[in-house]
Amino acid sequence: MPRFQTLRGMRDFLPEDLQKRRHVENTIRRLFDLYGYEEVATPIIESMQLVAAKAGEEIRHRMYSFLDLGKREVALRPEMTASVARLVINHLRYSPKPLRLGYVSNCFRYDEPQQGRYREFWQGGFELFGSTKPEADAEILTIADQLMRNLGFQSYEIKVSHVGIMRGVLEQEGVDERTQDEALAFMDRSEYERLIALLEERVSNQCIEVSRQLFDVRTDAVNKVLDQGRELLQNYEKALQSLENLGSIMSILADSGADIPATINLGFGRGLEYYTGMVFEVFVPDLGIALNGGGRYDRLIEVFGGEPTPAVGCAPGIDRIVIAMEKKNLFKREERGPKILVIPLEDELQGQALGIAEKLRKKGYRTEVEVTGRGLKKALSIASSAKYTHAVIVGRRELSRDSVTVRNLAKNEQTEVKIDDIQNRL
Amino acid sequence: MPRFQTLRGMRDFLPEDLQKRRHVENTIRRLFDLYGYEEVATPIIESMQLVAAKAGEEIRHRMYSFLDLGKREVALRPEMTASVARLVINHLRYSPKPLRLGYVSNCFRYDEPQQGRYREFWQGGFELFGSTKPEADAEILTIADQLMRNLGFQSYEIKVSHVGIMRGVLEQEGVDERTQDEALAFMDRSEYERLIALLEERVSNQCIEVSRQLFDVRTDAVNKVLDQGRELLQNYEKALQSLENLGSIMSILADSGADIPATINLGFGRGLEYYTGMVFEVFVPDLGIALNGGGRYDRLIEVFGGEPTPAVGCAPGIDRIVIAMEKKNLFKREERGPKILVIPLEDELQGQALGIAEKLRKKGYRTEVEVTGRGLKKALSIASSAKYTHAVIVGRRELSRDSVTVRNLAKNEQTEVKIDDIQNRL
Repeated sequence: MPRFQTLRGMRDFLPEDLQKRRHVENTIRRLFDLYGYEEVATPIIESMQLVAAKAGEEIRHRMYSFLDLGKREVALRPEMTASVARLVINHLRYSPKPLRLGYVSNCFRYDEPQQGRYREFWQGGFELFGSTKPEADAEILTIADQLMRNLGFQSYEIKVSHVGIMRGVLEQEGVDERTQDEALAFMDRSEYERLIALLEERVSNQCIEVSRQLFDVRTDAVNKVLDQGRELLQNYEKALQSLENLGSIMSILADSGADIPATINLGFGRGLEYYTGMVFEVFVPDLGIALNGGGRYDRLIEVFGGEPTPAVGCAPGIDRIVIAMEKKNLFKREERGPKILVIPLEDELQGQALGIAEKLRKKGYRTEVEVTGRGLKKALSIASSAKYTHAVIVGRRELSRDSVTVRNLAKNEQTEVKIDDIQNRL
Repeated sequence: MPRFQTLRGMRDFLPEDLQKRRHVENTIRRLFDLYGYEEVATPIIESMQLVAAKAGEEIRHRMYSFLDLGKREVALRPEMTASVARLVINHLRYSPKPLRLGYVSNCFRYDEPQQGRYREFWQGGFELFGSTKPEADAEILTIADQLMRNLGFQSYEIKVSHVGIMRGVLEQEGVDERTQDEALAFMDRSEYERLIALLEERVSNQCIEVSRQLFDVRTDAVNKVLDQGRELLQNYEKALQSLENLGSIMSILADSGADIPATINLGFGRGLEYYTGMVFEVFVPDLGIALNGGGRYDRLIEVFGGEPTPAVGCAPGIDRIVIAMEKKNLFKREERGPKILVIPLEDELQGQALGIAEKLRKKGYRTEVEVTGRGLKKALSIASSAKYTHAVIVGRRELSRDSVTVRNLAKNEQTEVKIDDIQNRL
């Protein structure tokens, strides 16, 4: 039989890799707890129609989709927001709002593998349903900021924009929604010239000019953005409202006293079609991929058949965060206390060795039993070279005195100890 | 757009459901830690060839398999052991043995949904590589027992058998491996008459007689099994060795002083073809589905192209455990300390409210901010009826004195408190 490998773009997580992922997951879960987001989970396989509905052209072409044995067209979820929206509609439609939900989930896209991009990847998520208010957007940005701080990042940037500004301009110019989606997709990929080309035959010269200037608005001075934007957008009322909404969000953050490293960048969009308002992404220096991203999506629940329910959220990319933390050396070695290897001196004492190990485990000690029939010398040499702090040697003579030999592997010292007193020698 | 639903056999986990699953997962992870099993993870999508190789006919026909966009024949894993064996071969081939690995993973089978059976289901797993010794089998049985105890089960049964006995008999009768697999699959489903029919033209009358009697050996008295079996199998040397191996495993457990509710039942097999030795399943009264199962699979790693590596393991079924715990009322309500709702008295104080919430979160308090623009009265009435213990009311007058109003929602009492002293009133 051939040697099997993981499929391209898929990964095994060895213990050390998984510990890193779990550390990030647990940091995210700690924020669920502190901010009141209740964790939910949804199936990995969903109907194709659901996950394709508002995913955006680019993602639609890179989904794992197939017919199941019941001939249903299904797909592995490429992202979580559509599934969580479905869950809200199916189960929490009449729950009091706001509703705060969180998740830690794997998603699937048939992307070309590259740094930080895998075909099975892990995402956390925070979704806040039921508020149109800028304070809800500010809460999500605060969470994104706190996540970076709690993971230990010293230097990062939160790039904030508002898709309502560009959509507002295009809507007023009579551009249909489909073309708006296309325009936003170009913006997401910073393909401004293709965007202009798309618009050129459809909109006024003023609109082209305004768009070009919008792409260039990049600053960490919120007031400057507002001043520039207000002048630029004076003839686009809806776009102007979106700009003011962005201003309110940023001013709540400023009032909260949080020192969030946010910059406004009106030339950026996001690939998913469901965003309607503020959008953002989080970057660290020297890594050109977003570690977190999100925004407001006020119409998704309605589009999927639920009551009109405003929503804002974000989805930290766990794999990318792990890569960034590795680069910055942010994973600390944990001190874990004693780890014991119990070694029976003869095969017939295996049961007794297991019994003693069980007693130690009941007291909370991490304990393994030598189960390969190795002799004492070999077992001890392996124990010392490996991950154990103590050996407990089980011999017939000592057992007759209710005792064992406890060996401190670091100090190379050993003493006979009553079985019930072992913990005092660890 | 139609209202979307989960696909048949798939589930959403609402917060309360997910808490239950996480409780079981965390109990499993606690055992990883105590017994030295290091957690790993593997991809959900694997090559069809890997997962089909030793899965057993029944599972092979119920897999989610499809061609990916690169035209590879792939499948969603129907179980974990094949994947973990692949991981060991690819990454840990030369690691010191024994190797103890654990996992908590979802698997996929297109089964007819019924109680405790879903198309996406969750499994824990303990796999111990590198020992042929009965003490390794005893360790896995001990873990299965401890898992039940730690979850709070008072009454359960561990049904133990050894596929080497039946295989030994059939091998000596010259039955080929393919037919042995078929026979064991019948045994797994307790279809003894079909098993006998399969064998009738292939084996001696003595063999039919011995098989019939083997199916009836069911007892919690290990010595009785050994006596009965030794007589029954006197002409089948390899089967006899397997019986003695089972005896050694049980006697180690007895010597360890563990009071494990094990019964020997030689008439039971397991559906997966890779088992070679001891097999077991865990049951609770009034629920006809196994909560955990496992056994020895000494040839799988070699079959997959690795060094010959003996192995024994088990895979607790997390969904089924949750169902059994619900029936027995084993989930306890956790006391979680204060939960705070911060309510700004006017929109302009949203930033200050967020800042105060952040201070409380930094001190570890679970805190939400009112983000829907509700007035105080409405916000308080929602806060009291819901899940909060305290409201922190942020008003302009109090803020000018660096204070807020803290309201104890259970007692309906409130006082003005300095912002930095809030925690003393919780």
